[in-house]
Amino acid sequence: MSTNSFGRLFTVTTWGESHGPALGAVVDGCPPGVPLEAAMLQHWLDRRKPGQSKFTTQRQEPDQVEILSGVFEGLTTGMPIQLMIRNTDQRSKDYSEIAEKFRPGHADITYWQKYGIRDYRGGGRSSARETAARVAAGGVAREALKALVPGLKITGYMVQMGPHKAERSRFDMDEITRNPFWTPDAEIAATWEEYLSQLRKSGNSVGAVVEVVASGVPAGLGAPVYGKLDTDIATAMMSINAVKGVEIGAGFGAAELTGEANADEIFMGPDGPEFSSNHAGGILGGISTGQEIVCRFAVKPTSSILKPRRTITKAGEETEIVTKGRHDPCVGIRAVPVGEAMMACVLLDHILLHRGQVGENQGRIG
Amino acid sequence: MSTNSFGRLFTVTTWGESHGPALGAVVDGCPPGVPLEAAMLQHWLDRRKPGQSKFTTQRQEPDQVEILSGVFEGLTTGMPIQLMIRNTDQRSKDYSEIAEKFRPGHADITYWQKYGIRDYRGGGRSSARETAARVAAGGVAREALKALVPGLKITGYMVQMGPHKAERSRFDMDEITRNPFWTPDAEIAATWEEYLSQLRKSGNSVGAVVEVVASGVPAGLGAPVYGKLDTDIATAMMSINAVKGVEIGAGFGAAELTGEANADEIFMGPDGPEFSSNHAGGILGGISTGQEIVCRFAVKPTSSILKPRRTITKAGEETEIVTKGRHDPCVGIRAVPVGEAMMACVLLDHILLHRGQVGENQGRIG
Amino acid sequence: MSTNSFGRLFTVTTWGESHGPALGAVVDGCPPGVPLEAAMLQHWLDRRKPGQSKFTTQRQEPDQVEILSGVFEGLTTGMPIQLMIRNTDQRSKDYSEIAEKFRPGHADITYWQKYGIRDYRGGGRSSARETAARVAAGGVAREALKALVPGLKITGYMVQMGPHKAERSRFDMDEITRNPFWTPDAEIAATWEEYLSQLRKSGNSVGAVVEVVASGVPAGLGAPVYGKLDTDIATAMMSINAVKGVEIGAGFGAAELTGEANADEIFMGPDGPEFSSNHAGGILGGISTGQEIVCRFAVKPTSSILKPRRTITKAGEETEIVTKGRHDPCVGIRAVPVGEAMMACVLLDHILLHRGQVGENQGRIG
Amino acid sequence: MSTNSFGRLFTVTTWGESHGPALGAVVDGCPPGVPLEAAMLQHWLDRRKPGQSKFTTQRQEPDQVEILSGVFEGLTTGMPIQLMIRNTDQRSKDYSEIAEKFRPGHADITYWQKYGIRDYRGGGRSSARETAARVAAGGVAREALKALVPGLKITGYMVQMGPHKAERSRFDMDEITRNPFWTPDAEIAATWEEYLSQLRKSGNSVGAVVEVVASGVPAGLGAPVYGKLDTDIATAMMSINAVKGVEIGAGFGAAELTGEANADEIFMGPDGPEFSSNHAGGILGGISTGQEIVCRFAVKPTSSILKPRRTITKAGEETEIVTKGRHDPCVGIRAVPVGEAMMACVLLDHILLHRGQVGENQGRIG
Repeated sequence: MSTNSFGRLFTVTTWGESHGPALGAVVDGCPPGVPLEAAMLQHWLDRRKPGQSKFTTQRQEPDQVEILSGVFEGLTTGMPIQLMIRNTDQRSKDYSEIAEKFRPGHADITYWQKYGIRDYRGGGRSSARETAARVAAGGVAREALKALVPGLKITGYMVQMGPHKAERSRFDMDEITRNPFWTPDAEIAATWEEYLSQLRKSGNSVGAVVEVVASGVPAGLGAPVYGKLDTDIATAMMSINAVKGVEIGAGFGAAELTGEANADEIFMGPDGPEFSSNHAGGILGGISTGQEIVCRFAVKPTSSILKPRRTITKAGEETEIVTKGRHDPCVGIRAVPVGEAMMACVLLDHILLHRGQVGENQGRIG
Repeated sequence: MSTNSFGRLFTVTTWGESHGPALGAVVDGCPPGVPLEAAMLQHWLDRRKPGQSKFTTQRQEPDQVEILSGVFEGLTTGMPIQLMIRNTDQRSKDYSEIAEKFRPGHADITYWQKYGIRDYRGGGRSSARETAARVAAGGVAREALKALVPGLKITGYMVQMGPHKAERSRFDMDEITRNPFWTPDAEIAATWEEYLSQLRKSGNSVGAVVEVVASGVPAGLGAPVYGKLDTDIATAMMSINAVKGVEIGAGFGAAELTGEANADEIFMGPDGPEFSSNHAGGILGGISTGQEIVCRFAVKPTSSILKPRRTITKAGEETEIVTKGRHDPCVGIRAVPVGEAMMACVLLDHILLHRGQVGENQGRIG
Repeated sequence: MSTNSFGRLFTVTTWGESHGPALGAVVDGCPPGVPLEAAMLQHWLDRRKPGQSKFTTQRQEPDQVEILSGVFEGLTTGMPIQLMIRNTDQRSKDYSEIAEKFRPGHADITYWQKYGIRDYRGGGRSSARETAARVAAGGVAREALKALVPGLKITGYMVQMGPHKAERSRFDMDEITRNPFWTPDAEIAATWEEYLSQLRKSGNSVGAVVEVVASGVPAGLGAPVYGKLDTDIATAMMSINAVKGVEIGAGFGAAELTGEANADEIFMGPDGPEFSSNHAGGILGGISTGQEIVCRFAVKPTSSILKPRRTITKAGEETEIVTKGRHDPCVGIRAVPVGEAMMACVLLDHILLHRGQVGENQGRIG
Repeated sequence: MSTNSFGRLFTVTTWGESHGPALGAVVDGCPPGVPLEAAMLQHWLDRRKPGQSKFTTQRQEPDQVEILSGVFEGLTTGMPIQLMIRNTDQRSKDYSEIAEKFRPGHADITYWQKYGIRDYRGGGRSSARETAARVAAGGVAREALKALVPGLKITGYMVQMGPHKAERSRFDMDEITRNPFWTPDAEIAATWEEYLSQLRKSGNSVGAVVEVVASGVPAGLGAPVYGKLDTDIATAMMSINAVKGVEIGAGFGAAELTGEANADEIFMGPDGPEFSSNHAGGILGGISTGQEIVCRFAVKPTSSILKPRRTITKAGEETEIVTKGRHDPCVGIRAVPVGEAMMACVLLDHILLHRGQVGENQGRIG
């Protein structure tokens, strides 16, 4: 299978470089009969689109998506859906210096070492622009989910920027769209705004933690051992540019817990099993419990900074580099819609996979 | 592809339940001509084997592996290698109570809800016994790695148990095999010993963090976007029972760093590029840099504890459960050889994948 | 994916050599709750078993299958099902000569050239003994099909041996089990008996054509372009040892037809569409029509013959070889249950795949 | 894996409908550093392009291919290569009648029954226009093969049209490009010309047999059991629209041979093993012998004919249909470059796969 594809039944194959003519995704395995038009995908792309606040790259990309196949008279046909986004504001001149120098923290040196050739214009294939294709694909998944599991909802938001963590007691999900950081904690948004303005002015950047929650997920999604739902979610998130860690439910915190504290007790509610807590993050043995699925991932600070850094050239000479160009001071912000999109793709894939192997019958409780 | 398989060219398909007659793995895609005999695999299985200290389950399983195919006159033939381990000490009677009750924190309820049937004897397929097959498969990968990349070395160890973290300044890799916890910090081993004895006596359990490091890994392993080396490592680790989080290099710590602090500067050493630090964990843009590959994963406390926990029955009635049987108070200990095995499988797979697409040529520096 | 696996959702991974301790298959993706016990599989294995008449190899193999996993209290659990068959009558001594010489028409020379090592005992992995594992796996598929599509029926039979073709006007499906050739044409069976006795005595062998028909297959199975039902059936059949050609419906005969003669006209029957003929073999555009699915495959004569043949040694010296041992004079006979098994696996796989992507809804006619 | 993808390491995912805005292919896994530009692919597309003689559809499509990614400064980068071909001459009005009626012999009825929706404009996804994407992808494979195995050559040609078979004794490969049928038999070309003119005028069509030969293929390509080279070639050919049968080497003819006649004897030539004949079609046990690889496939007559045929409507009413529009009287002609393209893709894939698992070492003879 292509290393530019993911998914089992609902598959996404992305293609394209940062500064080529276009990029996109082939989305295959989508159920037929799902209402789909470009505007539905555009909605999500606009959330990821650069240049929306002073805290994201000033590159001007409309990120306009075209559907080239797989949709007929406004409905998916079950055929592969080609989503194409033209690159318009490429300014390749910004990148001339890095043709010879490897930017620290970037894939420049490893792509060169692996392939003996690299598209040095803005990272080429390793650029975070690839995530636009994911967001478009995730938009398709969302529409299919809407048709298959009406109550399912996916919400992503930032919970940490540098050392500053959001405070759960202050969470108000309505706040998420009211600040440029997609955070439900209005108070921390103010802190971050000041902190990030400072960093941005000094030509620096910072990391972040993003949380993605899915509610209304039916019990029974996931498969044993190497097809676990949590594994597939972790895979999806880790594949996003700059992600260095991922956790489900209590995550690394679970290492500190005793078994007594960690295991979520089970009760019988009016609509089925309920749990005293959700350390499991909605997944036991790789299979969903019906609780909220909770995932977090850590995004490293972008390595494209105005601070001079020591590096080497292709010729092996030591030198310094300052990455000009237009970059995000905190890529975690734009990672929020990307994380949501990946969650949508994984959940849809597992719904189809479950339906394929098991069908509608499930074990009843009570 | 089977959800009980992983890998791209070097593939592992595991099978078997905790209390069935046997379990094992089909390992395929191994290069031909690799010296292999059961004793080589047994070496690693013995590290994972239950009952080695009072800190692991007292189930008595010799975990004797048989090679049923794919090896001829002591060499791999390139054909699928069937590794079988008989279950001998099954004591199914221990599990009669849990036929009707769902153990909190276990996969009992989700397997039931998904499949409408479950092998309730000791977790069946969701049991950590499945990891014996991984360790055996990892042993095959290690032998192939030995032939292909002689200097490559994989070392796993525990760095945290409950709230008690090992201290890097005290690390001495020779200590790892001298304590029952596979930790290079002899001092913390003493702390853990006391702490875990206490927990064990009280019928409780605790989580842990395991670190796996690979050194001598050539630059250039990994592939773009959905075949990243770090993604595949994360996938491999997350698929291990009880793992709730995984991180590469600085991991979640990267969220707190600035771009200036995080990006590892590059210098020219006598044998090629060198780096000022290793926040990247040896991987940039999904491709290995030649530095040490560093991965950590968090293991939740086993949910099989003697403390009574509230739960429900298949009939939906609320009740309590105490999980008797013989269980690990800290499954992190036995997760160490499992994490190593997964790392070996992923690295071999990517070596083959790289050789397949790119061959021997790589971009030269200097 | 392993090159020893096939299938998309219902996957089969076979392993084992002709003269190793055992061979078998891991069957994964089977729906849960299907009644399954070894005797059900044995039924089909006994049809393929060697030594049943003088027209098949005299090797004495009971081909007793054991189910090692994936079944609990007589029902499939949805977990991987390990099927193991011990090799008992190995007589490796028969094969000592071929350690150094390549048998013409066998895989000896290519395995050697590819891998630089080969298990020369009776063909090792390339032996037709591998098909026992397919038959066992097909038995699992049949039980699942029985549960999912009760009316579905798969029937294989021989239609040609050497130059002697069966005559369709004489077909009586009840005859199939009444002759040692699995043919519905009793008259040709008599011809074949005499013809093959002659060949066998002279130490020669002959090829055959096998037809496999599936009736009661619902319309709508298959997928576009590279997942066509006919492609997957062809793939399955071509992967059987000694198969050199495969065709669907009119097959190569379609090359001789005009469009007017070939296109099956459509009518409306009481239960849905009906067709004037079945040149399509039950598949249009890769998707089943609801008609009988008709597939034929050609099996070459076994190359293990007592006639001396010229060949070379590993050292490159020219020599002669006579393949002693116990071989089938017409491997087409034992290919019948194998072809049926492959058809069963492909159909089940596509039923699950269809259910996964499309669910229960289909386009209505009338 | 997407059912619109094929290949293991060198993968091709096609997308697009007959009358949508565009169609194309994502080609992934191509080795880096291969010289590639659109004109190289255009060369092959022009061979398949409609409207080249009176014997192919008069639809006017320039089939101009654009490379949207994966190539940098004239070289492949190892990243996914997006190939896009705009549909220009769509004339959807020709297809209005078939919105309600199912054309016999076409995928209309099965797509409807499966998906409950179909893009009825010219077959949509099931149209043979999809094969343009294959030819483009095959062009990429050819350039990579040129770099990796300089002597390898792939040649396709027609050997039968309707009842008229080409005569091997008259074959002159230079003739292939001198007639509109891609046949090496100039005499049969004259026969076919008259025969097909007649059929075309009467609004009828006819089937054909195409042969594809690859020479200069190294020994050792292919893998056991389900990754056999002949299986993968058969799969590739069967997936082409209208193909109803495929055979390797002696193919169905092998059914008529004795073992003595069939098994190609082996001799030692100056450059390695040589064979007395090639009934095997260059493949033994699924692995290439170094001989010519010989494959044939049967193409049914196009079902789009001017002869009225009986059919039903979506409403289930019986009616008649005449398929107007611009169609090929013998689709076998344009299948020739498609068959070549598929052969190129499969061979490249297996070269990479072999290099991945086995590397450069092979078993030596002599």
